[in-house]
Amino acid sequence: MIAGIIGATGYAGAELVRLLSGHPKIDKLSLASVSFEGGRIENIYPHFLGRLSYPLEKPEAVVAASDIVFAALPSGVGEGYAKLCIEKGISFIDLSADFRFDDDEATFTAWYGKPYVHPELRKSSVYGLPELNRGRIKELALAGPLIIGNPGCYPTGASLGAFPALVKGIVEGNVIVDSVSGVTGGGREPVRSFHFPECSDNVAPYKVGVHRHTPEIARNLAAMAAKASRGAPALIFTPHLAPMNRGILSTIYLPLAREWKPETAAAPNSAPLPPDKETNEAAENIRKVYEDFYRDEPFVRVLPAGVIASTRGVRASNYCDISVHLDQAGTTLIIVSAIDNMVKGAAGQAVQNMNIILGFEERAGLEAVPAVF
Amino acid sequence: MIAGIIGATGYAGAELVRLLSGHPKIDKLSLASVSFEGGRIENIYPHFLGRLSYPLEKPEAVVAASDIVFAALPSGVGEGYAKLCIEKGISFIDLSADFRFDDDEATFTAWYGKPYVHPELRKSSVYGLPELNRGRIKELALAGPLIIGNPGCYPTGASLGAFPALVKGIVEGNVIVDSVSGVTGGGREPVRSFHFPECSDNVAPYKVGVHRHTPEIARNLAAMAAKASRGAPALIFTPHLAPMNRGILSTIYLPLAREWKPETAAAPNSAPLPPDKETNEAAENIRKVYEDFYRDEPFVRVLPAGVIASTRGVRASNYCDISVHLDQAGTTLIIVSAIDNMVKGAAGQAVQNMNIILGFEERAGLEAVPAVF
Amino acid sequence: MIAGIIGATGYAGAELVRLLSGHPKIDKLSLASVSFEGGRIENIYPHFLGRLSYPLEKPEAVVAASDIVFAALPSGVGEGYAKLCIEKGISFIDLSADFRFDDDEATFTAWYGKPYVHPELRKSSVYGLPELNRGRIKELALAGPLIIGNPGCYPTGASLGAFPALVKGIVEGNVIVDSVSGVTGGGREPVRSFHFPECSDNVAPYKVGVHRHTPEIARNLAAMAAKASRGAPALIFTPHLAPMNRGILSTIYLPLAREWKPETAAAPNSAPLPPDKETNEAAENIRKVYEDFYRDEPFVRVLPAGVIASTRGVRASNYCDISVHLDQAGTTLIIVSAIDNMVKGAAGQAVQNMNIILGFEERAGLEAVPAVF
Amino acid sequence: MIAGIIGATGYAGAELVRLLSGHPKIDKLSLASVSFEGGRIENIYPHFLGRLSYPLEKPEAVVAASDIVFAALPSGVGEGYAKLCIEKGISFIDLSADFRFDDDEATFTAWYGKPYVHPELRKSSVYGLPELNRGRIKELALAGPLIIGNPGCYPTGASLGAFPALVKGIVEGNVIVDSVSGVTGGGREPVRSFHFPECSDNVAPYKVGVHRHTPEIARNLAAMAAKASRGAPALIFTPHLAPMNRGILSTIYLPLAREWKPETAAAPNSAPLPPDKETNEAAENIRKVYEDFYRDEPFVRVLPAGVIASTRGVRASNYCDISVHLDQAGTTLIIVSAIDNMVKGAAGQAVQNMNIILGFEERAGLEAVPAVF
Repeated sequence: MIAGIIGATGYAGAELVRLLSGHPKIDKLSLASVSFEGGRIENIYPHFLGRLSYPLEKPEAVVAASDIVFAALPSGVGEGYAKLCIEKGISFIDLSADFRFDDDEATFTAWYGKPYVHPELRKSSVYGLPELNRGRIKELALAGPLIIGNPGCYPTGASLGAFPALVKGIVEGNVIVDSVSGVTGGGREPVRSFHFPECSDNVAPYKVGVHRHTPEIARNLAAMAAKASRGAPALIFTPHLAPMNRGILSTIYLPLAREWKPETAAAPNSAPLPPDKETNEAAENIRKVYEDFYRDEPFVRVLPAGVIASTRGVRASNYCDISVHLDQAGTTLIIVSAIDNMVKGAAGQAVQNMNIILGFEERAGLEAVPAVF
Repeated sequence: MIAGIIGATGYAGAELVRLLSGHPKIDKLSLASVSFEGGRIENIYPHFLGRLSYPLEKPEAVVAASDIVFAALPSGVGEGYAKLCIEKGISFIDLSADFRFDDDEATFTAWYGKPYVHPELRKSSVYGLPELNRGRIKELALAGPLIIGNPGCYPTGASLGAFPALVKGIVEGNVIVDSVSGVTGGGREPVRSFHFPECSDNVAPYKVGVHRHTPEIARNLAAMAAKASRGAPALIFTPHLAPMNRGILSTIYLPLAREWKPETAAAPNSAPLPPDKETNEAAENIRKVYEDFYRDEPFVRVLPAGVIASTRGVRASNYCDISVHLDQAGTTLIIVSAIDNMVKGAAGQAVQNMNIILGFEERAGLEAVPAVF
Repeated sequence: MIAGIIGATGYAGAELVRLLSGHPKIDKLSLASVSFEGGRIENIYPHFLGRLSYPLEKPEAVVAASDIVFAALPSGVGEGYAKLCIEKGISFIDLSADFRFDDDEATFTAWYGKPYVHPELRKSSVYGLPELNRGRIKELALAGPLIIGNPGCYPTGASLGAFPALVKGIVEGNVIVDSVSGVTGGGREPVRSFHFPECSDNVAPYKVGVHRHTPEIARNLAAMAAKASRGAPALIFTPHLAPMNRGILSTIYLPLAREWKPETAAAPNSAPLPPDKETNEAAENIRKVYEDFYRDEPFVRVLPAGVIASTRGVRASNYCDISVHLDQAGTTLIIVSAIDNMVKGAAGQAVQNMNIILGFEERAGLEAVPAVF
Repeated sequence: MIAGIIGATGYAGAELVRLLSGHPKIDKLSLASVSFEGGRIENIYPHFLGRLSYPLEKPEAVVAASDIVFAALPSGVGEGYAKLCIEKGISFIDLSADFRFDDDEATFTAWYGKPYVHPELRKSSVYGLPELNRGRIKELALAGPLIIGNPGCYPTGASLGAFPALVKGIVEGNVIVDSVSGVTGGGREPVRSFHFPECSDNVAPYKVGVHRHTPEIARNLAAMAAKASRGAPALIFTPHLAPMNRGILSTIYLPLAREWKPETAAAPNSAPLPPDKETNEAAENIRKVYEDFYRDEPFVRVLPAGVIASTRGVRASNYCDISVHLDQAGTTLIIVSAIDNMVKGAAGQAVQNMNIILGFEERAGLEAVPAVF
């Protein structure tokens, strides 16, 4: 089985190389890079020397050589390769946003500033968040070659954190997602905001109110709420950058529905007191709902009471860790979710999607124990 | 003029040493340290070698030698020194929480787990957030020696970010404060959570729903709302730790009051679109209200449109930087505030309070240009 | 096959857990921890939740349950467990310094301040640097259960960097090893020097002239020189700490023997000029000697000309990367070697030793591709 | 007094802005920037908002407006401005390498690849390392307008560390300088090697054997040795990059001259033992020589026995900290020197030179206490 990667020298591409080269079902890779065509991957990333060695070819050669193709390209440039793959009869896993909005071209265009190149490809495409769409992905994969719109990094962590609360009716009202990302999320191209002296020892939000992942998160929340016949919640989303390489931590604020509030939930306007026994019990009840909801998911870990999700806890793994909390007054559910932005937030989830499409064990190639430090 | 520092070898104490040794009105320091009594400050912190040299004495000796005394001690151990100062007729600036709650001993006790030692001292004490209480501090200082309850680090950044919105009636509903702090906020004592291999390359919240700064922030918000005859908003506060030394960034979510929403503010449940012209204008209007509100404040900078507050921007300075944003739908005000937790969040604000009490120029000793990198 | 780990909750222990749990020949682990006896590993390191789960038992129970035992303990406390293993007839891989000096108890005692507990165990022990001693390790392993003195982190990187130059007679005179380590090298116990605010944004040497790895490096250099019937070189070694988690970079300065100098090697006292063609050729010749020397080593990579070794290049892998350089004047060989201090410098090398002892493929369980970022 | 800065928006330029805006003798700045001409400094660096505000003009306008001019430009582009200043009769402090080699144009050309533009300007220029050349700088300044070749960052730390040993005849033989720099040393332009994900959590040397600071360090060592009628030592210099913003740490290895070795200095080839009493006394004797040598220098601190120089210890200050050590065998002097690369290594030293030229107190504007964290 040969896996192809178009855009292999960007960070997401290099992470695909790393993961797929250790995958038990993948025998060989075929790589393309616009920036380094004609070179070799182990010269671009000397970390790979002695472990793997591949030329960097044209995308068309990769499609021709492969049994499945991944693309880690900017939005708007990969649809042609998707078309080639479908025509050849192989699946295409796209890490850009091009196939994340299904037939809602209007939303895509409003946020990404361009129309679809081949709108008809959406008949063969599905949004690849397994915890939301696994059934549909499997079903479509049986029917023929498939295009996966692999989720964005922020949408993955934010959606997984909010899903159980939405589908179980635990919350009602606005959803606020406050996320902090490591710097690899910005890619390999050197720009001032990711220049070491500018982003080390610094935390700041960016693109407040205008980040392109906003409609993707909102769409996921709406889709999950719809499963429980509920309306779409409004979404406020603020991304931040922190001086670390990997990881996204999302702190998600969801107002509790009346029936899930502790009886002692504070009246507004009263001075805050530390959480009482009822509040702590209410939090634990909700934590158990989360635990149940994700019991069979191979890559979502609802943490035991007392353990708080952190980016370090999932580093270099495909896990999404979730911890469940209430504010002191018992009025607001506070969910903390952590993923590795390059694994569950990009390349790992893409491999997970490949596993589902090709009928492999879903954990295959993704079993590394998170490094502790 | 001799300034005394009790607790001079902790981080806040050392920052006081740094700032006061460059203060134009302070001729000499007198230092005490429980941990290193009998030693010298320049041996504990060799950075000071050749620039300053002081013995570390008993607190009583410091009170006896000084014209004003700062205490950078844990909560619950410094009231006795406050009493000594008042009896001697000099002012006492306390960086712990002991004097932040005025006569509301119940709230202090609920969160800090102990009663006041000398409750009667609250007759001479005032909460030292100049942007809230400058008038009262000045008034009381004229009347005699004063105890300042110097604000906590999170409460400083959070309160300054929310004040104009509250007092001008721009918002109504819950206030959510999501804050990220540098590691010096945890003090100098080595513990696992601040061990380099555990907290580098990691972002995580801590003390979710139970952090002691919660009632202090809530009280400040209530006090400011009361100035406009409005009720106290409910508060949700979540602190995080990030791998940097200094700084607190607070992202504050405040639901817009109807009259401040753009006319085009999105209905709930609709798919998010990028912000329109009306939304951007509404944001700019609120930014101008903030600018007006803080026009005469020496240490609050409302940033121009297009510049986002960051911890780097205030590093090693006494500034609080504030940037003003709306979410894409025009329903929620998003305020970002940044302070240096050791300066405006601790030692710098204490010096600012000293300047007010003693009638010095409020900027004295605090004029350093923030280091760019 | 059951592998036991005594000292499983320190950093080296946790790294052993990570590596051994992915090892194709190891079915199960048995873990002991003094600090957390009675607990479970996945509670101490929640990163492991859902991937592995083991109780923390007494060391004796681990010896009883295991087919091979690793100990990651401070020097001076593990000899008794080594004895138990030998008596039981299983091998013992010791990550402390206790078995690194063979029967040279005098040197051990001079630097570690205590005598051997069971000197007679040195009959069954061997220093486990495979690139120096592989033949002897294999030979002894055939003869019965074996104790491995697993090398120190600095000695591994420094020795591998200097070996070819010494054994091929390329250099003569003092060897200067200037090393920079990540903070995990200091272990998991929180102390001031590894407190985030003290060691972030800082580089400094420590234990100059007195570090305990000095005699171990010197002994290795002498052993390798002896293989070529040369005398032991004098050693100067200076360790530094840098603000990163993993990795040791050693820059090694070795004066070129006359016959290896370029003909144009500068006379002393002349003003330096950039390296000329002859100097660059001389460097390339030596690089090829290094390449030949390590051609069959599975974990030593001599980098191509133009690539400089870096800690990032070996991160989380068992590789030692080496790059070969000359100074501008062509008089001094400058070798740069990089290892991951927790893998090739500790747990990975221990697994490599296990593979050799038990006749597994030497790369087994150590094939992870280094993470690029 | 108006100070002009050409190249004000690079890192060295911005640091000049910071330092000069707090200088007691400078009333106003005049700034030029090629990249941002027509803009304002406080828009490029919003940290400065509210504290200072200047337009960015053409270099010629800056020369016309100023009483002294600093240039923080790449080598080879600033000589024309130097000429303008001399013609106008004002001094010019150049932070590039253009004036560091006096009339040795051959060495400059060999390393920088271009000839001098106005060779005759070297009649008015002097190398501005005050600890080497203060007398000459003062003398020339009395005679008329002066061009200062402000030293490179590595040469400053390395030279100050080696000077006393060379001039006092403590050492003989090669000098090895192993230096580690923070990332601001690479400037503000985003390039891959300073991209956060590439240089965080990484230590590596660069430009081994070919760094342009090599001839400058060698020339300084030769100049100082000549003061004691000694020959120029050979120099090996290796720069490294570490994941921190500011600072250069140099570890300097110098072979002890026979008369300075402890009587017990180890014979080569013997197994290393920890340093004995004689070795420790020999180290302390040399430390005292260093202390005497630098007794009257305002910015060199020879640290007390037991304190090791670190970049943190000099952060944001103009100090060069030096600690003195011997290897365990008593054969090699190991000097550790630390500077802040942007202050003593660039902008601070430039201000120190201005103070000398204009007859100000040499410490003026450079008295900030190093920040502890």
